[in-house]
Amino acid sequence: MTAQTPPMGWNSWDCYGAAVTEKEVMRNAEYMAQYLKPYGWEYVVVDIQWSRPDARDHSYAPFADLSMDAYGRLIPAVNRFPGAAGGAGFKPLADAVHALGLKFGIHIMRGMPRAAAHKKLPIEGSEAFCHEAADPHSICVWNPDMYGLRCDSPAAKAYYDSIFRLYASWGVDFIKCDDIAREYPRCRREIELISEACRGCGRDMVLSLSPGPAPLEQAEHLKRYANMWRITDDFWDDWRHLKAMFERAEKWCIHAGPGHWPDADMLPLGALRQCENPAEWTRFLPAEQRTMMTLWCVMRSPLMVGGELTKNDNFTLSLLTNGAVLEIEKESVCAHPLRTTEEESLWVAPRKDGRGCYLALFNLSDRRRKISVSAEELGLPVLGGMELWNKKVLSGSGQISTVLAPHDALLYHLFFC
Amino acid sequence: MTAQTPPMGWNSWDCYGAAVTEKEVMRNAEYMAQYLKPYGWEYVVVDIQWSRPDARDHSYAPFADLSMDAYGRLIPAVNRFPGAAGGAGFKPLADAVHALGLKFGIHIMRGMPRAAAHKKLPIEGSEAFCHEAADPHSICVWNPDMYGLRCDSPAAKAYYDSIFRLYASWGVDFIKCDDIAREYPRCRREIELISEACRGCGRDMVLSLSPGPAPLEQAEHLKRYANMWRITDDFWDDWRHLKAMFERAEKWCIHAGPGHWPDADMLPLGALRQCENPAEWTRFLPAEQRTMMTLWCVMRSPLMVGGELTKNDNFTLSLLTNGAVLEIEKESVCAHPLRTTEEESLWVAPRKDGRGCYLALFNLSDRRRKISVSAEELGLPVLGGMELWNKKVLSGSGQISTVLAPHDALLYHLFFC
Amino acid sequence: MTAQTPPMGWNSWDCYGAAVTEKEVMRNAEYMAQYLKPYGWEYVVVDIQWSRPDARDHSYAPFADLSMDAYGRLIPAVNRFPGAAGGAGFKPLADAVHALGLKFGIHIMRGMPRAAAHKKLPIEGSEAFCHEAADPHSICVWNPDMYGLRCDSPAAKAYYDSIFRLYASWGVDFIKCDDIAREYPRCRREIELISEACRGCGRDMVLSLSPGPAPLEQAEHLKRYANMWRITDDFWDDWRHLKAMFERAEKWCIHAGPGHWPDADMLPLGALRQCENPAEWTRFLPAEQRTMMTLWCVMRSPLMVGGELTKNDNFTLSLLTNGAVLEIEKESVCAHPLRTTEEESLWVAPRKDGRGCYLALFNLSDRRRKISVSAEELGLPVLGGMELWNKKVLSGSGQISTVLAPHDALLYHLFFC
Amino acid sequence: MTAQTPPMGWNSWDCYGAAVTEKEVMRNAEYMAQYLKPYGWEYVVVDIQWSRPDARDHSYAPFADLSMDAYGRLIPAVNRFPGAAGGAGFKPLADAVHALGLKFGIHIMRGMPRAAAHKKLPIEGSEAFCHEAADPHSICVWNPDMYGLRCDSPAAKAYYDSIFRLYASWGVDFIKCDDIAREYPRCRREIELISEACRGCGRDMVLSLSPGPAPLEQAEHLKRYANMWRITDDFWDDWRHLKAMFERAEKWCIHAGPGHWPDADMLPLGALRQCENPAEWTRFLPAEQRTMMTLWCVMRSPLMVGGELTKNDNFTLSLLTNGAVLEIEKESVCAHPLRTTEEESLWVAPRKDGRGCYLALFNLSDRRRKISVSAEELGLPVLGGMELWNKKVLSGSGQISTVLAPHDALLYHLFFC
Repeated sequence: MTAQTPPMGWNSWDCYGAAVTEKEVMRNAEYMAQYLKPYGWEYVVVDIQWSRPDARDHSYAPFADLSMDAYGRLIPAVNRFPGAAGGAGFKPLADAVHALGLKFGIHIMRGMPRAAAHKKLPIEGSEAFCHEAADPHSICVWNPDMYGLRCDSPAAKAYYDSIFRLYASWGVDFIKCDDIAREYPRCRREIELISEACRGCGRDMVLSLSPGPAPLEQAEHLKRYANMWRITDDFWDDWRHLKAMFERAEKWCIHAGPGHWPDADMLPLGALRQCENPAEWTRFLPAEQRTMMTLWCVMRSPLMVGGELTKNDNFTLSLLTNGAVLEIEKESVCAHPLRTTEEESLWVAPRKDGRGCYLALFNLSDRRRKISVSAEELGLPVLGGMELWNKKVLSGSGQISTVLAPHDALLYHLFFC
Repeated sequence: MTAQTPPMGWNSWDCYGAAVTEKEVMRNAEYMAQYLKPYGWEYVVVDIQWSRPDARDHSYAPFADLSMDAYGRLIPAVNRFPGAAGGAGFKPLADAVHALGLKFGIHIMRGMPRAAAHKKLPIEGSEAFCHEAADPHSICVWNPDMYGLRCDSPAAKAYYDSIFRLYASWGVDFIKCDDIAREYPRCRREIELISEACRGCGRDMVLSLSPGPAPLEQAEHLKRYANMWRITDDFWDDWRHLKAMFERAEKWCIHAGPGHWPDADMLPLGALRQCENPAEWTRFLPAEQRTMMTLWCVMRSPLMVGGELTKNDNFTLSLLTNGAVLEIEKESVCAHPLRTTEEESLWVAPRKDGRGCYLALFNLSDRRRKISVSAEELGLPVLGGMELWNKKVLSGSGQISTVLAPHDALLYHLFFC
Repeated sequence: MTAQTPPMGWNSWDCYGAAVTEKEVMRNAEYMAQYLKPYGWEYVVVDIQWSRPDARDHSYAPFADLSMDAYGRLIPAVNRFPGAAGGAGFKPLADAVHALGLKFGIHIMRGMPRAAAHKKLPIEGSEAFCHEAADPHSICVWNPDMYGLRCDSPAAKAYYDSIFRLYASWGVDFIKCDDIAREYPRCRREIELISEACRGCGRDMVLSLSPGPAPLEQAEHLKRYANMWRITDDFWDDWRHLKAMFERAEKWCIHAGPGHWPDADMLPLGALRQCENPAEWTRFLPAEQRTMMTLWCVMRSPLMVGGELTKNDNFTLSLLTNGAVLEIEKESVCAHPLRTTEEESLWVAPRKDGRGCYLALFNLSDRRRKISVSAEELGLPVLGGMELWNKKVLSGSGQISTVLAPHDALLYHLFFC
Repeated sequence: MTAQTPPMGWNSWDCYGAAVTEKEVMRNAEYMAQYLKPYGWEYVVVDIQWSRPDARDHSYAPFADLSMDAYGRLIPAVNRFPGAAGGAGFKPLADAVHALGLKFGIHIMRGMPRAAAHKKLPIEGSEAFCHEAADPHSICVWNPDMYGLRCDSPAAKAYYDSIFRLYASWGVDFIKCDDIAREYPRCRREIELISEACRGCGRDMVLSLSPGPAPLEQAEHLKRYANMWRITDDFWDDWRHLKAMFERAEKWCIHAGPGHWPDADMLPLGALRQCENPAEWTRFLPAEQRTMMTLWCVMRSPLMVGGELTKNDNFTLSLLTNGAVLEIEKESVCAHPLRTTEEESLWVAPRKDGRGCYLALFNLSDRRRKISVSAEELGLPVLGGMELWNKKVLSGSGQISTVLAPHDALLYHLFFC
């Protein structure tokens, strides 16, 4: 099963925006192989605009000249990805990532380049033409490059099949498909078409849908056709974004399960926005970073680090290599909040194997705060436990009571009688 | 803790509407003591309009003459509850129920009788008068008897304290407070006042709020101030009501926990609507009754039987005395749906003690249907199990696959490696 | 035809709130007879709560003891209206007003006193009882005295007929019915019932509906069943209220016609809020008062002065006695705005007799402003004209161009070639 | 002043859709010159898609190859407009129309051809390029040809100026600008830009905005920047469309005036849909056609005939040549409905010169219906009159009472005492 547990990896957006290069990707892949792989990190994902030669930062440009093949399929901009020269596409880069024991992913937009339709290019492996597949009325509200497809036309299926054939030939393991997850109902059929092309292309690929918020009432459709989907708009290193995630996590937590994961978006940790300023660092306080990691793990969100990995400091690295914390992603089940108010949130997650449960305490207030919970409130036969960030043993009693710094979190593994 | 597990009992509404008598209440209490008590059933609740002498059925009447004391507190209509003669109130009935080893509950409306305010009666234990507490702008949309209170006035607190003092003196264990759970935001403060009067009255009482649907976004307020609250409008023996409950159960399941239980409403089983026609029987098919019991148990809703118990047939009794099924209410935790579509629903609930989990399969379609789920999809190390309605052992394998009749359910206890 | 032109008169609310007395009413009636009657002013209207002995100001009180007869019909509080002693009701006061050559009006609320229903009083001229007519679910959101009626019951018709019979016997000429004009759709039938009782009572009475805003989409229903209806919530001496009236006037102007007049509410001129403070005076600047009078006249709103007339200064009196301006109410037709922006508004109204038209210019801005309009823009064969507030002749030309003070208005009678 | 009275003419859409030819245009122009011009008809308008060589009917096609000049300005398809050969554009056709004593108009879409932007063509008379003016996010929901412009860029102004310069050089007198009138608020600035280009081009052109419904709350903006604007979606020969126009007419009537006319859309009279089937004829009954003409005239909507004029039968021609009816467009003012219900509508409109008024009676019901109105209800000093469709004298009395066939209308000129 694809994505039996939540995918974990790195994505180029938070640090390089639309402008990442082959060299930067490899640098992060090598870091991951060396420092993170033992903890379950494996995907290396190139985000949006890899076909645009003149991308500089996080912005888009109208009427940009995107690199594409004779069939209207986007290919890497060779000035940024030299390995793609000679029509090799991302195969050389994927091979290099695979050689490190990792997996390789790319971003796509739904649809096809507008230029491919206006030029009336042929569709590979088909009698049809691009302008027969493109829907001139289906555009993205935030990016000017693409037309969505007329999903009831055979040409549309032919085009999507043709691009997934290409990605499979490159060795792609992960597709982040954009401009689609919050576009229900109009993109419902397009999601199905892309999902079918992905699953029919002969290579196992994780299908991740962006941007959020995906609509909650489409949970079953998303669970059926995608492996992960964004539950929020872009998440950045801003406490308001993080605090707001608790409400979304509460709504979506019951939909996390093998093969289908609600996605709280990338982890803006360490060195961010490098294309704008190499000195940029996450604005999250250490306590907030702990809160983010704790929530993402306990709700079993996919984990995709957004920072330039090679600039990680010890603290950042420690967040990404706490095996006992990361284990929750694989070993817990049925997580849900015990309660969430403006001031605090408590989450509980049983272990799959019956060996106790996890309890996360979050101080959402701006002041130090005592948070207490009794075994009676939990309704669980708690005997004792271990706090997983600080590795402190919890002396057995019917009451957990602790003081947390503002915006901080603690995470316990509780044992039962 | 009050309501450490979901309350279980009997309520007079489904069979006797507004018109139940002391004799009928006692008959059902005696049946409960004899047949149901060993399985955890304990509350005997007298529903709405017990102060109205001329109640006949499920309807209300404008300007009815309700029995009340000199302080504007409703008291039982003596023609229907002879034990209440001489100002004894419900004490004699409560005593009789307690003598059976059971607990006694009553229905109230928020507010006070309109007549008490128009007569300007004094409030017991206070210098204030009823018309100083009543809010002439706060009425119930479906019942004409009461005025809600001006919750910011000391007189309002005095009135609510006075009625809970009376109920405590009667020996009441359970209050079903009506016209309030779906009345957010205007009744938010009134809920708090009633909750405080209830908790401050010196007797442990379950506080149950009706009618639904309570607003989901008020979950934390409800969890704090009530022990149970209705998540739907009145539930009756109609498949459409039952099918619709799956969506509500999905939204509310994460909020069930010790002391606070989302309430899917009474179980319309067996002999119903007896005041209209003694031959009336639940219109639910046996399969639908099994589905209802399974869903209520797995979501850990309170269980309040609505039928005249003494008319139970063997099948109805068997639903109420399946100990392995009812145990889920006390022993499971963190239940949630695996998936729910128009055709089927699958729910999973770990056991608190780590000894496996429960899996419920529901066929929501109108045709026989094969429902399958693999251990991989569950993400759980399943070894084997037992179906709890039919007591059939599940031969250990990675796949559960079974055919269900329309509207039917199965419920497994799964064991882990 | 009742209300062939827009009714003009005085109403007690703005100066005396709920607390006016017989003496105060007569004082204003006498002033009207002496100073205003020649200009078309004729109605003298006693506003809300004339049956409440302890009314003091503009406020209401829960559970107030209202004066009523044995049939649940409100009668004047004798301490405030001594002439009503001995069951005479308003007849003596009406007679006195009639003797001055004027007409007499009263305020009513839809429905009946709550106390009449709770006391189960009989309905005059009928076998039915008040509690059979009252609807305990139909209350007013801002006043606690009354229940609306169950309009499909014969008892409701009997009750409304009984009160109009009483008013006709008193000699009432004008009914301001409250809690009804903005209560569509739930009060649609109640409006019809009241209108039928009014028209069937044997005496010609203007039927005026309050409060506003009445819904525009009910214009035809209002035109059929009422003579005037409020198009706004209560209007007071606040420039924001006055400026906002232009938008409402624009929407409603096409619905003004013989027998049916959109009502912009009372004119808060002169001495207001006398029950709170005898020194209170309108907060409208003179320019604003001119703007108000001009708009009300050009849109042909009913005119009901709200101030204590006997305290009028010369300026106030001059506004009420400009015959050339007031004549527009009777002689114009089809008024509508030429244009209305945040800064200015221009209205035009042809004369019924073809002798030219009226043109009103309003400076809605907070600065002096030049306002211009050409005959070409008007599309009218303008020859010359007269400004009616200042009695200045407009020298004939194709262009009117003038400078107005902030919030001020000018009003022209234009002559055609 | 442009459009001092409501424009009257012919438009190619109803009969020829997107496919009209030069020959067909001239045939209709010649007919107009001969038969209609004496009654005020003067505009001959070529509707949408005149630059598309392969247009066949009322439909659009994605990625169609539109004729354009080297500056991204659409030019007539030469196969359909042979006179446009050699870059002459519409000048020869405009000249021919002018030679008949008529005026010439064309349809445009807001924005520029998408192909012009993707090809990055230069803008005539400017240093800027088309792709600098085009907004790739601004598309039309029903036609795939164009991009709206980035209205805050100088390039956008340059482009709009360039096309109006071209139209002025051709001799265009009327611009129907499409995809704009109902696109508030996002096209508010685009309307201003187009209006300024139109008024600054050196030639007097009527600016007409489509499609509707334009939002009522933008009335003042529309009055300022356009000469006419659609108040409905496309109007066709369907009684439901016609009946629904009465509500819109009521809302918009006060905004009609010299230079700015709410537009009820084309008159689908006579031979329609000729490109689909030369035998097609209006589905409106004669009574309905009379109702349409009467309403359009009394509300002073622009009049643009949609049928192939040369196929007119006598009845159709009679509707277009009733001078007394058409005179209302020029001689009335301040029209408004007296009342409108599901069954009937009555409109009144004073004459500008004071010589009486017009009264229109409409039977909107499906049965014969007596419609009555008294002079008292009109509030007008009516002496007598003339019915204008049947030329019948109305005998002077205080009451007009007549029986109308279903869906029929009568139109009176009433004289005053």
